[in-house]
Amino acid sequence: MAEDVGFGDITTAMLPDIDGAADLIAHEDGIVAGLHEAQSVFNYCNVTTSPLCNDGDIVNANDTVTRLSGRVRDILVAERVALNLLCRMSGIATLTQRCKLAAGSVTIAATRKTTPGFRYYEKKAVAIGGGDPHRYSLSDSYLFKDNHLNVLSIEDVLSKKTFFTKKVEIEVEAVEDCLKAAQLGADIIMFDNMETNEVISAVTALKEQGLRDSVLLEASGGITLDNIRDYASTGVDVLSLGYLTHSSAWLDFSLELHM
Amino acid sequence: MAEDVGFGDITTAMLPDIDGAADLIAHEDGIVAGLHEAQSVFNYCNVTTSPLCNDGDIVNANDTVTRLSGRVRDILVAERVALNLLCRMSGIATLTQRCKLAAGSVTIAATRKTTPGFRYYEKKAVAIGGGDPHRYSLSDSYLFKDNHLNVLSIEDVLSKKTFFTKKVEIEVEAVEDCLKAAQLGADIIMFDNMETNEVISAVTALKEQGLRDSVLLEASGGITLDNIRDYASTGVDVLSLGYLTHSSAWLDFSLELHM
Amino acid sequence: MAEDVGFGDITTAMLPDIDGAADLIAHEDGIVAGLHEAQSVFNYCNVTTSPLCNDGDIVNANDTVTRLSGRVRDILVAERVALNLLCRMSGIATLTQRCKLAAGSVTIAATRKTTPGFRYYEKKAVAIGGGDPHRYSLSDSYLFKDNHLNVLSIEDVLSKKTFFTKKVEIEVEAVEDCLKAAQLGADIIMFDNMETNEVISAVTALKEQGLRDSVLLEASGGITLDNIRDYASTGVDVLSLGYLTHSSAWLDFSLELHM
Amino acid sequence: MAEDVGFGDITTAMLPDIDGAADLIAHEDGIVAGLHEAQSVFNYCNVTTSPLCNDGDIVNANDTVTRLSGRVRDILVAERVALNLLCRMSGIATLTQRCKLAAGSVTIAATRKTTPGFRYYEKKAVAIGGGDPHRYSLSDSYLFKDNHLNVLSIEDVLSKKTFFTKKVEIEVEAVEDCLKAAQLGADIIMFDNMETNEVISAVTALKEQGLRDSVLLEASGGITLDNIRDYASTGVDVLSLGYLTHSSAWLDFSLELHM
Amino acid sequence: MAEDVGFGDITTAMLPDIDGAADLIAHEDGIVAGLHEAQSVFNYCNVTTSPLCNDGDIVNANDTVTRLSGRVRDILVAERVALNLLCRMSGIATLTQRCKLAAGSVTIAATRKTTPGFRYYEKKAVAIGGGDPHRYSLSDSYLFKDNHLNVLSIEDVLSKKTFFTKKVEIEVEAVEDCLKAAQLGADIIMFDNMETNEVISAVTALKEQGLRDSVLLEASGGITLDNIRDYASTGVDVLSLGYLTHSSAWLDFSLELHM
Amino acid sequence: MAEDVGFGDITTAMLPDIDGAADLIAHEDGIVAGLHEAQSVFNYCNVTTSPLCNDGDIVNANDTVTRLSGRVRDILVAERVALNLLCRMSGIATLTQRCKLAAGSVTIAATRKTTPGFRYYEKKAVAIGGGDPHRYSLSDSYLFKDNHLNVLSIEDVLSKKTFFTKKVEIEVEAVEDCLKAAQLGADIIMFDNMETNEVISAVTALKEQGLRDSVLLEASGGITLDNIRDYASTGVDVLSLGYLTHSSAWLDFSLELHM
Repeated sequence: MAEDVGFGDITTAMLPDIDGAADLIAHEDGIVAGLHEAQSVFNYCNVTTSPLCNDGDIVNANDTVTRLSGRVRDILVAERVALNLLCRMSGIATLTQRCKLAAGSVTIAATRKTTPGFRYYEKKAVAIGGGDPHRYSLSDSYLFKDNHLNVLSIEDVLSKKTFFTKKVEIEVEAVEDCLKAAQLGADIIMFDNMETNEVISAVTALKEQGLRDSVLLEASGGITLDNIRDYASTGVDVLSLGYLTHSSAWLDFSLELHM
Repeated sequence: MAEDVGFGDITTAMLPDIDGAADLIAHEDGIVAGLHEAQSVFNYCNVTTSPLCNDGDIVNANDTVTRLSGRVRDILVAERVALNLLCRMSGIATLTQRCKLAAGSVTIAATRKTTPGFRYYEKKAVAIGGGDPHRYSLSDSYLFKDNHLNVLSIEDVLSKKTFFTKKVEIEVEAVEDCLKAAQLGADIIMFDNMETNEVISAVTALKEQGLRDSVLLEASGGITLDNIRDYASTGVDVLSLGYLTHSSAWLDFSLELHM
Repeated sequence: MAEDVGFGDITTAMLPDIDGAADLIAHEDGIVAGLHEAQSVFNYCNVTTSPLCNDGDIVNANDTVTRLSGRVRDILVAERVALNLLCRMSGIATLTQRCKLAAGSVTIAATRKTTPGFRYYEKKAVAIGGGDPHRYSLSDSYLFKDNHLNVLSIEDVLSKKTFFTKKVEIEVEAVEDCLKAAQLGADIIMFDNMETNEVISAVTALKEQGLRDSVLLEASGGITLDNIRDYASTGVDVLSLGYLTHSSAWLDFSLELHM
Repeated sequence: MAEDVGFGDITTAMLPDIDGAADLIAHEDGIVAGLHEAQSVFNYCNVTTSPLCNDGDIVNANDTVTRLSGRVRDILVAERVALNLLCRMSGIATLTQRCKLAAGSVTIAATRKTTPGFRYYEKKAVAIGGGDPHRYSLSDSYLFKDNHLNVLSIEDVLSKKTFFTKKVEIEVEAVEDCLKAAQLGADIIMFDNMETNEVISAVTALKEQGLRDSVLLEASGGITLDNIRDYASTGVDVLSLGYLTHSSAWLDFSLELHM
Repeated sequence: MAEDVGFGDITTAMLPDIDGAADLIAHEDGIVAGLHEAQSVFNYCNVTTSPLCNDGDIVNANDTVTRLSGRVRDILVAERVALNLLCRMSGIATLTQRCKLAAGSVTIAATRKTTPGFRYYEKKAVAIGGGDPHRYSLSDSYLFKDNHLNVLSIEDVLSKKTFFTKKVEIEVEAVEDCLKAAQLGADIIMFDNMETNEVISAVTALKEQGLRDSVLLEASGGITLDNIRDYASTGVDVLSLGYLTHSSAWLDFSLELHM
Repeated sequence: MAEDVGFGDITTAMLPDIDGAADLIAHEDGIVAGLHEAQSVFNYCNVTTSPLCNDGDIVNANDTVTRLSGRVRDILVAERVALNLLCRMSGIATLTQRCKLAAGSVTIAATRKTTPGFRYYEKKAVAIGGGDPHRYSLSDSYLFKDNHLNVLSIEDVLSKKTFFTKKVEIEVEAVEDCLKAAQLGADIIMFDNMETNEVISAVTALKEQGLRDSVLLEASGGITLDNIRDYASTGVDVLSLGYLTHSSAWLDFSLELHM
């Protein structure tokens, strides 16, 4: 709230001190997310909220998602922050669910490509949309990318880790590295920026070596709604998409005041 | 940084303690923004930065924007946060400039439809892209929207304001309200969600009454790259677009490590 | 509260755990301000408050402004912080109102000459006393002072500003600069440290050029209760006084406990 | 700084990016305090400072206290915050020293009647002016006032305290209470709002009982420059004055820019 | 709570959303401390608490100290933080009381040898166990140790102090220094790392000089349950032990859930 | 530092402003930890540090671990905080290493039984002593304890988890539960408060079913230096001990000033 209010809402301060009611209304079809956060903003401003649906529900254009009542000044001061939370989180949840529907039984996951300071809410929106939030921070699990493997061998990675409670994920760009990581006991292998036919070759090679079932497989890099079906059919367990958080547009909601 | 690092980067902690160099490389054409912020993140992690361009410059795919040198561990810990800042801010600056080119001499402005907690950086990216950041917070200037004018008349608004240093902006949806606001001395009039022909009628009416020059005119609501030329030719001074911040995708950059 | 309590009020901790009532009593005539803040301090300490007047009301010596009830320990722990807010804010509001009465229809405004960290409350007290808080921070509006105009011409200032929502104020020390600023479209002109006869000359010159009505005029610098009538009669719209916040004494209140 | 800068100094942002020098100049005679704080503000903004005097020194009108050099933008952004610290703290130090000169060998002390959030700096200014800061917070020492003694006897106070490292001060309003507190072993006795002749009577009574040397005596309540000599001659050790912090005016300084 | 919860309790999030009850149970005999803190953690998580005893009470193994009711998820999220507070504080209170019983009428005090960031709670536990918390911070009272007295004489210390409200404590390691400090008016003398016979000699010397009653005597350094009786019988007023906070083990409590 | 310094070190403020040197000296044999943190405290106070050993090194009584130089005042202000960090962290690292030596090739791990607010440093000390820090927070991995399994079946736990990147640990108290958890794919099984012979039975049963190699085994509950060899020989992979953090005493260090 501090960011939006500054030293005070000088416009709303001029309003008469009267009570009123208002609705939060969807203007597009999609999945609602951020309802809890939006309501918290209103409650913080002493506005009473009566939700008509829950996070994760489908909404259609013109649906009212929450009824509000309280001082008109308080409703209007809280409006923008609440809508910013609701619109951004619902946009991400909606895009996540579209990807999930396209990917069938394969898990859809987010990445750390999020807006600085707002990651928690973006990851939560992915989960509401049916996705896996993946790592919240660099301390969540081991993930060795190409830049790490330039200076450390896969053998070292898997023999020296200090947290027995953490999984080890290895990023590979070629079939040989994939086999090696699986043989040495990686928990997860990520195919990074590989074409679908390359991913299929790697999965096939793992199966031939009897290594497929002992490891989770994740594909990442350039996956969007346009190509997600192709990647989903390669045989991997998880698809992770920066696209969910860095390219989603808002789902539009507005506040209508009744006097 | 705290958000991304958690209690420590357990992956990078396993790397040998060696020095290295790296480049930040663009993967798309666009306008660079967030270079200062990205460099601050690296500097905070004791990585030395040598910029090859400035915020606001045009970059092409494959251009290196900054050279980095330092401990490999430090470079990799800072990578994601720095890229998140750079990619998001450059995405917004690039979209702003495209809108600006389409709008000719009309000013392009942002709105308060920003990611919670990250507004300052999104507004800064708009400015780098050549736009006007508009209000940072509710205390920046008076802006009376339809919800306010439901409970307060335009006469009251303009006769009772308490800050002589602040401009008064009135949102209108009809020609009569526009004329009334101008007659009563509004500093700025915003045409909200009006069709271009309605805006043209309002501007014409103001000119006929000799009121056009004493007021700034702003159009807002549903303006995107698709219709911006039409709105720009209506005769208003400013177009404001939530679209700049809520629907911009990232401009893609990556970090390449050299050993 | 943290500032005043340290690791705990060792004196009050020795009191028996009993309930009591108390009054906040004025010891001088003046305008009450800070009642809301004082009550918030008591409420935070679980003391119930029953106000007998509102911010902005006139009080006379010996008037009770608020009744308190709760644990005696809680009342005494909160006492000093609550009184410090009430006495300082009421002192400023009282001085502001005296200046306002002396200035007639001319607006009385504060400056940024405030106690570091406490500006919001000092500006609020000015508003309660009937004054205009002026700029809260450097991002509120443009104000070009002599030091700025040493390195930037008035022409540059008025042709290049980036925020269409912000007013431009120009500080002048001579009649020629005043006319130039008005001709170039300044929104506000501030006469800085000018004698009253100089201000009168400048206002007269503006009138002769037909520029008086398109600009707000503010006088500042060394204005106190002693000379405010003279400045108020020069024809300016606003008088701004650092004096309101940097030289106001407390309005004295105390807490009386009843057992 | 955050309080004063808001989201950015929009005025200074328009200045050309050039270097400059400036002086901080006194406009009144007094004692300098806050020089360290003012310089820290400038240093934080990357401005180099060269002090020409120290906190506690006497300055005369037109003396330069510190030379500044750096980017003109940085100097002007830091100006107001630095001056607010310097002017307020020097005002308090100057008033403290005047009181000290009037009081001779009697110690001058502050109270907790300070501006919320700014106490540390106001107490430091008192010390620079030659006074004793007295209690910073309620955990510094025991001080039983009339409101406490309404619900707790002096006997209880002195027999049950839990901190052997803390002194016990008892506020009295009558001679009998004074004698009793001294007999029971109070470390300090405060004469609250007593007339000078009453104080003299109490001191005399203590001497007659042979209790004068085992206790420190403090007078408080309504002491100002006008009556301080009278209180100083009553035979007490300390005079404490809320007046030092709640009624001091600024000592005026300004910043002059050289190009 | 933030430290323990991270971005969310992923385990508990999988539980069904049902209500339940639980008990906090002691597993060892001792003194309870931290009950208020533990309950605050539960209340913060919306769990209702019904205490069966108070801080400072004796508990025996298998005693229930507090009943809990609320959502099972909330109870389990709060469990660890609440127990950590309760077990650590009760461990310190229990050890303090054992020392107190061994020391008879001599005061037992803590030191500043505490866990960084947790001092307030460790000192509070000492007080609950019947001890004196001693200094919370370096601004509580004067304490001149050997390192200080290397560069400052006892005469200087006692003649120049600036806070009349603060006691002066002097650390000594020899009888002569002890006599000198007492003669010059020290409020407290600390015997640092002296054998019991040396302490006895010092106390005797003070008595012979008639100085014993004007000063408080404190022994410190290497005192534990093993030797506390010997030090208690030397004639000092206070024994201070870092041992209370740096070597106490937990008093074990656990949470039992009822469905 | 804020916790220890309060509003200022009133003792040290009286010292002359001279430079000096000092040593940090060990008084017991053990493992050093917290050297980095102790040095950071001194550096923050402008004291230069020259370490003579590294975190994790063995020290013997009377070894100097770090040389210090700077203003004497600064050295003494920083002393206590730096020592508190060094002594507490070294105590934990020393105890961890003793446990590790006793446990042979079995991993020694910490728990979440840490001092509130200080967990990061206590876990770091465990790692320096050669242990595994285990979970930093509830979001690190899944750990289903008896209280969770009261309301959720092992089948549910293992089929519904939402984070593919997180391991699942199941706490068991009986052999059947252990086999069930292994069959259903748990990553880690924790034997909670089981006697060594029960643990041996469970390990044997897992081997007989061919499930031993697909799961990590951890024993926890009441393990100390006294019984650690027995638990280490049961065949588990990891022993976790709250004892490392809740019952470790300090390793004693002091600061010696040279003039």
